[in-house]
Amino acid sequence: MTPAPIDQQLAKASINCLRLLAADAVEKARSGHPGTPMEAAPIAYLLYLRHLRHNPANPAWPGRDRFVLSCGHASTLLYGILHLSGYDLSLDDLKNFRQFGSRTPGHPEFGHTPGVETTTGPLGQGFAVGAGLAMGARFLQEQVDPELFAYRTYVLCSDGDLMEGISAEAASLAGHLRLGNLICLYLDNRITIEGDTSLAFSEDVGTRFLACGWHIERVEGENLADIDGAIERAKTDPRPSLIIARTHIGQGAPNKQDSADAHGAPLGAEELRLTKAALGCDPDQSFIIPPEVAEHMGEIRGRGHKLEADWQQRFDQKLQDGAPQLDHWRQLHADELPDGWELGLPEFLPSDGAMATRKASGIVLNALADRLPLMLGGSADLAPSNNTEIKKQPYFAPGTSGRNIHFGVREHAMGAILNGLSHTPGLIPFAGTFLVFADYMRTPIRLAAMMGLGPIYVFTHDSIGLGEDGPTHQPVEHLATLRAIPGLKVIRPGDANETMRAWEAAIADRSTPTALILSRQNLPTLDRSTCGSADGLHLGGYILAREDGELQAILLATGAEIHPALAARDLLQQQGIGTRVVSLPCWELFEEQEKDYRDEVLPSACTRRVSVEAASPFGWDRYVGPDGAMVAMTGFGASAPAEQLMEHFGFTAENIAGKVQELL
Amino acid sequence: MTPAPIDQQLAKASINCLRLLAADAVEKARSGHPGTPMEAAPIAYLLYLRHLRHNPANPAWPGRDRFVLSCGHASTLLYGILHLSGYDLSLDDLKNFRQFGSRTPGHPEFGHTPGVETTTGPLGQGFAVGAGLAMGARFLQEQVDPELFAYRTYVLCSDGDLMEGISAEAASLAGHLRLGNLICLYLDNRITIEGDTSLAFSEDVGTRFLACGWHIERVEGENLADIDGAIERAKTDPRPSLIIARTHIGQGAPNKQDSADAHGAPLGAEELRLTKAALGCDPDQSFIIPPEVAEHMGEIRGRGHKLEADWQQRFDQKLQDGAPQLDHWRQLHADELPDGWELGLPEFLPSDGAMATRKASGIVLNALADRLPLMLGGSADLAPSNNTEIKKQPYFAPGTSGRNIHFGVREHAMGAILNGLSHTPGLIPFAGTFLVFADYMRTPIRLAAMMGLGPIYVFTHDSIGLGEDGPTHQPVEHLATLRAIPGLKVIRPGDANETMRAWEAAIADRSTPTALILSRQNLPTLDRSTCGSADGLHLGGYILAREDGELQAILLATGAEIHPALAARDLLQQQGIGTRVVSLPCWELFEEQEKDYRDEVLPSACTRRVSVEAASPFGWDRYVGPDGAMVAMTGFGASAPAEQLMEHFGFTAENIAGKVQELL
Repeated sequence: MTPAPIDQQLAKASINCLRLLAADAVEKARSGHPGTPMEAAPIAYLLYLRHLRHNPANPAWPGRDRFVLSCGHASTLLYGILHLSGYDLSLDDLKNFRQFGSRTPGHPEFGHTPGVETTTGPLGQGFAVGAGLAMGARFLQEQVDPELFAYRTYVLCSDGDLMEGISAEAASLAGHLRLGNLICLYLDNRITIEGDTSLAFSEDVGTRFLACGWHIERVEGENLADIDGAIERAKTDPRPSLIIARTHIGQGAPNKQDSADAHGAPLGAEELRLTKAALGCDPDQSFIIPPEVAEHMGEIRGRGHKLEADWQQRFDQKLQDGAPQLDHWRQLHADELPDGWELGLPEFLPSDGAMATRKASGIVLNALADRLPLMLGGSADLAPSNNTEIKKQPYFAPGTSGRNIHFGVREHAMGAILNGLSHTPGLIPFAGTFLVFADYMRTPIRLAAMMGLGPIYVFTHDSIGLGEDGPTHQPVEHLATLRAIPGLKVIRPGDANETMRAWEAAIADRSTPTALILSRQNLPTLDRSTCGSADGLHLGGYILAREDGELQAILLATGAEIHPALAARDLLQQQGIGTRVVSLPCWELFEEQEKDYRDEVLPSACTRRVSVEAASPFGWDRYVGPDGAMVAMTGFGASAPAEQLMEHFGFTAENIAGKVQELL
Repeated sequence: MTPAPIDQQLAKASINCLRLLAADAVEKARSGHPGTPMEAAPIAYLLYLRHLRHNPANPAWPGRDRFVLSCGHASTLLYGILHLSGYDLSLDDLKNFRQFGSRTPGHPEFGHTPGVETTTGPLGQGFAVGAGLAMGARFLQEQVDPELFAYRTYVLCSDGDLMEGISAEAASLAGHLRLGNLICLYLDNRITIEGDTSLAFSEDVGTRFLACGWHIERVEGENLADIDGAIERAKTDPRPSLIIARTHIGQGAPNKQDSADAHGAPLGAEELRLTKAALGCDPDQSFIIPPEVAEHMGEIRGRGHKLEADWQQRFDQKLQDGAPQLDHWRQLHADELPDGWELGLPEFLPSDGAMATRKASGIVLNALADRLPLMLGGSADLAPSNNTEIKKQPYFAPGTSGRNIHFGVREHAMGAILNGLSHTPGLIPFAGTFLVFADYMRTPIRLAAMMGLGPIYVFTHDSIGLGEDGPTHQPVEHLATLRAIPGLKVIRPGDANETMRAWEAAIADRSTPTALILSRQNLPTLDRSTCGSADGLHLGGYILAREDGELQAILLATGAEIHPALAARDLLQQQGIGTRVVSLPCWELFEEQEKDYRDEVLPSACTRRVSVEAASPFGWDRYVGPDGAMVAMTGFGASAPAEQLMEHFGFTAENIAGKVQELL
């Protein structure tokens, strides 16, 4: 079908309207970024009117095309086009830009504003999330229905996005995987905050992307037919597409166009008046939507309604015809896990022998994957170490979209792609790397927590217990730094059965991300007939071993260190010191419990408390109090066999017991 | 000068010796990475024997060429070639690979092993540090002496390094700046841990680097003349060079070559025997250095001694002839700051009006830069916001090497480049971005702390106090996550004078990195005649306002929040509640003080303590104790004007005073 010709006059009016809505909103807020919305208005107009298959009345329609504003600072562009397209975002919302409680925050926030697909702002994130969304769509096409999920992902990005390393990682993987359903439009405006981009950025972006397997188009940012044609060609190219649009920041502002001044501050009353005049609008009026523009853009709503209705009809018909994958998807999309998903998960016996929690994790992950066919994931080139492979399942590759993903050595993009997959309805994504490399992906983790997404991180090699690889690979501060992220569940199980419960907790509540923190080294599987049940993990902390006699001391431990803590308790009990061991694998879950329960586990009367964790003591004061002590890592680790390190740094029964005795 | 021809026989013997030293060391340690050393041995041999200008007797010779092993897991390659070259690293050291206390840890550690220029292991870091070293050399050439510092930086890297986003950032900047003194050799072995690189990495690396302004060479990894010629051409090309060497992981191992099995585990006794046999060596012997190899490689020592002696003579002559820059450099290189550097730094008066600490920082930075001509730095495209520009000084650009650096929107590479600049003798580097983007550069910060380097980070926009940009830009957990890094000084000054002292502390002790945490918003300059002196910053924490009457409560605050804390104190004192305000800008410095001082500031008898910091409460239990309270951010922020946010989240005098009253 040949696309309808562009009505240049209506287009111009709509685009200028978008430009001025953005400039007016920033001006009223006395804060914001007018320049990028002004340059990108033609692209937004063309995308929302002519290319995106979307229904403004239902921003959650699963079959819609996705649009990601990677340069999130251009939020008024998005708010403007959402408003003109008929999304539930009023002109008053635009007038409240950047005000407390408004639906138009400084950067787009997922879950906050209808039509915002993902939270953006930190540069590069949206670009990589876009790759994840495109992967998610392809996965749904292959695993659920090829036609219902044949939607595309569009990304709008800036110089800043493409200077960030995360976008290079994502571009390399997207090109490798031939994500033909991903179309990125790059605003080549040649201006950054410090001045001309040529001050720091002189690479040939097109050639770089070509080298990564992308389809490249070059267009003039004011030439609508040019842009439109490029988008059409991008839609049919089997490679991901980068459309390089030569644009001019602050387009239309007589004195600020092509200047860094247009980037991050209001145009100013006088320049705004001049801009309005230059664009043929009334300099004395603000937030104006000409009636012909409103009518013109109103087409989107009607068309969107029909698109979704058609889709829903096909969906219903397919369900009726019997489509078990689609039915399973429907259930997961409604946030319902299949009945009995948690029954009969692997339980482990002491007789199974010593087992690293990363190994137990691999076993449990596979058991879960059997029951949850839309679970998918992989590792940043450490699958054999992270035990993240779903056995007997194909990989996600250029020609196919299996459940295992080779992310390559690209932790940062992996984190953002996981967010894209988490945004994809029905999917249960996970990804692994060594805990120390969580540092490479902190921003996507933070954004997942902020958005209330539920990706699952499999962070193995969780302490000096990894041994010989030495301090560069030994996480020390990482537990503390993950625990400090609001809304992230950090779970460090201490044996195979706690690991099973940890996975259970991660899957059961996917309103937050979960980081599973797992050992490289083998650990005994505790005999649960003689100590607290691993079910206690769901409470975040529980009494693992009760004191004999009067309670005189409490040892608090997580992960591998519950074992030397238990051994220390034996030593202390032999000396008649009533010692309790508390396993505290998830602080966040423990804090959610009633005070009564917490007091039962950690009676306030017992201030003789020693924490045991092969990590920074940072944060442990909360549980240990001023009269306690900590067995912890106060500096970086060292390269040596694990057992020697554990002994050197004091994670032995004798040293732990000694700390308790010092408190007596 | 035409280079001497390569003696193929001696070369082969030396290269095989290197291969087997690596394989033997890994085998003995029962842990490590033999495959990469075996493939890269020819390159290491050629570099150390024929190209590097170095003196094994003095690894600290400032005029030496630098070698960075970015793929740090190949450490036995480095240890082997250092030993053969005559560095102070014995065969016994090699035999102690990965053992406790040895000089041959699993990954190369700076300061631990002679000849190791920087700590590597986390992939991509070394590549970007290499760019920083090359920048450092060019800076010394321009600012101190063009001839004495005309050394080169060589980097050896792997697929994994080039998949990481940080290397894309560094490559883009290095190409832009035309760092002709940077030569990277890339081991294109087409194998990763999960299998063939083509599983996840199919980009055309050469073309990508060409697009970034690099000179590209392609060689066969076993062809010595080929490699040698490429290095020679690279030396004269004005662009940075990437030499793509088609290599074979585990080269020489009959059954493991070209297999992921050769990557991360010992070859195994039998395969090692077969390898020795295949390489024409005795399968029954280990750690063998043939005498002709020892003699051949012994040349390096003699030549190195002469190179340094010549250099030193020219250096001394220049000094004698009068070279003030060189004399200044000599002093800084000896870790001595010029006399009086700290005298007469800007002091600020209340009458100067409200001032953001980022603004005060810019003023102090410029005053310091006037006294310290080898101070250099910049920002990741936020210089106007971070106030990191050294006024009236040129920028570091393709044709010149000024003191201001446009890093571009590349925080991660910036962090690693800062490490490279910190390794460069005499330099005092700093770099800025928004605090929230510290997440993009955590690994280089961690490595700086681990190495004991002294870069200074200027992290501005330090809380919800940045206002309208909203939660993606508002750091919440970042103070906690930086404080958790062992050895990093985190300083959050509360007014202009504390900011001056913070810079003073950062410069005075450069044995650790320092993160300055600065406000976007204006803050009053305190009248120090009525409150504690800002000198107290050097103690980490101090009494800012003493209680009137009996001490009943302590307010602890940092940064901007010392002001509402002081106002809360006024309210409380009006009610007769003796309230002390403690400013605690640097926890690390405070913990270094004698217990007596800490007890004087925070008397243990006073348990009614309230902390006030617009950040996660994580970690504050340490000072607040179980009977205290915290005014803190328990979740993410929001987009609104700063004053409104401060009120909403409780950082007001009334709310703080209320918290104290609740404790009464």
